[in-house]
Amino acid sequence: MDEFQLIRRYFVRSAKPRADVSLGIGDDAALLKVSPGQELAVSTDSLLSGAHFPADLAADAVGHRALAANLSDLAAMGATPTWVLMALTLPEADEVWLDGFSRGFFALADEHAVALVGGNMARGPLNITLTVHGLVEQGTALTRSGAQVGDLVYVTGRPGDAAAGLKLLQAGSADASHPCVRRFSYPEPRIAAGRALRGIASAAIDVSDGLLADLGHLLEVRGFGAKLSLERLPVSAELLALYGQEEAWRLALTGGDDYELCFTVHAQRSS
Amino acid sequence: MDEFQLIRRYFVRSAKPRADVSLGIGDDAALLKVSPGQELAVSTDSLLSGAHFPADLAADAVGHRALAANLSDLAAMGATPTWVLMALTLPEADEVWLDGFSRGFFALADEHAVALVGGNMARGPLNITLTVHGLVEQGTALTRSGAQVGDLVYVTGRPGDAAAGLKLLQAGSADASHPCVRRFSYPEPRIAAGRALRGIASAAIDVSDGLLADLGHLLEVRGFGAKLSLERLPVSAELLALYGQEEAWRLALTGGDDYELCFTVHAQRSS
Repeated sequence: MDEFQLIRRYFVRSAKPRADVSLGIGDDAALLKVSPGQELAVSTDSLLSGAHFPADLAADAVGHRALAANLSDLAAMGATPTWVLMALTLPEADEVWLDGFSRGFFALADEHAVALVGGNMARGPLNITLTVHGLVEQGTALTRSGAQVGDLVYVTGRPGDAAAGLKLLQAGSADASHPCVRRFSYPEPRIAAGRALRGIASAAIDVSDGLLADLGHLLEVRGFGAKLSLERLPVSAELLALYGQEEAWRLALTGGDDYELCFTVHAQRSS
Repeated sequence: MDEFQLIRRYFVRSAKPRADVSLGIGDDAALLKVSPGQELAVSTDSLLSGAHFPADLAADAVGHRALAANLSDLAAMGATPTWVLMALTLPEADEVWLDGFSRGFFALADEHAVALVGGNMARGPLNITLTVHGLVEQGTALTRSGAQVGDLVYVTGRPGDAAAGLKLLQAGSADASHPCVRRFSYPEPRIAAGRALRGIASAAIDVSDGLLADLGHLLEVRGFGAKLSLERLPVSAELLALYGQEEAWRLALTGGDDYELCFTVHAQRSS
């Protein structure tokens, strides 16, 4: 069983647990009723060295990426980020690393006016778990479940760049300023795009596992399929220059780590 | 530097980040303004196998303990628990373990009407990070900072039992039904006590590191000292029977893992 099957089997329960839970486990974030007119969006995500980023990635990029990956889930709900908590497990108290990590983290936090309001530090194999909070006007959040037959599929930005950047990093000779390397190291969560898509997108998800895999999550909710036109995939000039058309398409479809938004729009809205 | 010094150095910032943060990093939980009259209490905590519980502890006890340790932080604020998110990093998808773990977790969650609203699962060394949420009427939360000279010091329950239970488990011949072993394996977060202490306690903290260490956190905020009377330490008959008076006192003062509440009360209230 994969992660999603295990979560469904052991952690998703059929009975609705509380009346104040508008949306529970299974979307990009949960939606909780905290005040009349507003919902709290919350999401948690872990980053592990080696699995989610190269062990030698610059510490400030790790701090940025950890927060970006979490904020991206709020972007996919159309929520405005507010607060974050950090559980940091470190093999040792490496102060040079902590200095870089915290600088990268706070640079992005400040950009989105997100406050770090809680933390836990423990000794063990590197594990960065963040829990992010955001607010969204009641009933306006983007979810994964609203797609309809005939909807058009969109994606923000240039998917594939981050995967290309990771390939460059793994090859060991990466220029840190290459646009694709920067797109992997310092992804920008699409907060403004998510906010703007409320009332427009019928369903939305952030692209962390790859465009095909994450679009698949939007479709499987409804049992739908989708037809993608390769020629209309937005692929960057940098990615094309690096790897050519075929590999660029492959990376754009399966690469992951982009933190772009994939969303659907009803056909009559799109015309 | 220890955990607290590292957090202060790299993650606590002098400028108040947002007007909706009533209380940020450094207490048992943060307090966030989410609606008129109510504050949201949030806290995150990680449990690591080996460091926070024996690697062979029963899976349902691990699930219970992970949630209890986190709910205990809400108890220390006088908050009523509402929602929890779980980031679970596991070396392998061991379904027997997951079955026990989720049963232990949900048994305690159901007891306190807490809904699991988000999760993340990753492969790596065992790391259980929970983020808990609770609600408390604005201005009534118990914090660490309200103690005054002359206050009396109290603790709930029978501290030391959990440490004795851990000693029994580590000796390898533990009877799982021994009251001290059960107090380690299935600690009860003092939610009701915390709620009842609002308006009575001047400061409160939960006892996770040991009574002396955690009382120390209450005192250091104000630069105070405290005088404890050993004869008045509430020590259980089971603990005394196991280890005698001297060791019972030592475990009650330094043992940790109790998840009782330590709190202060102004002298005129106590008389």
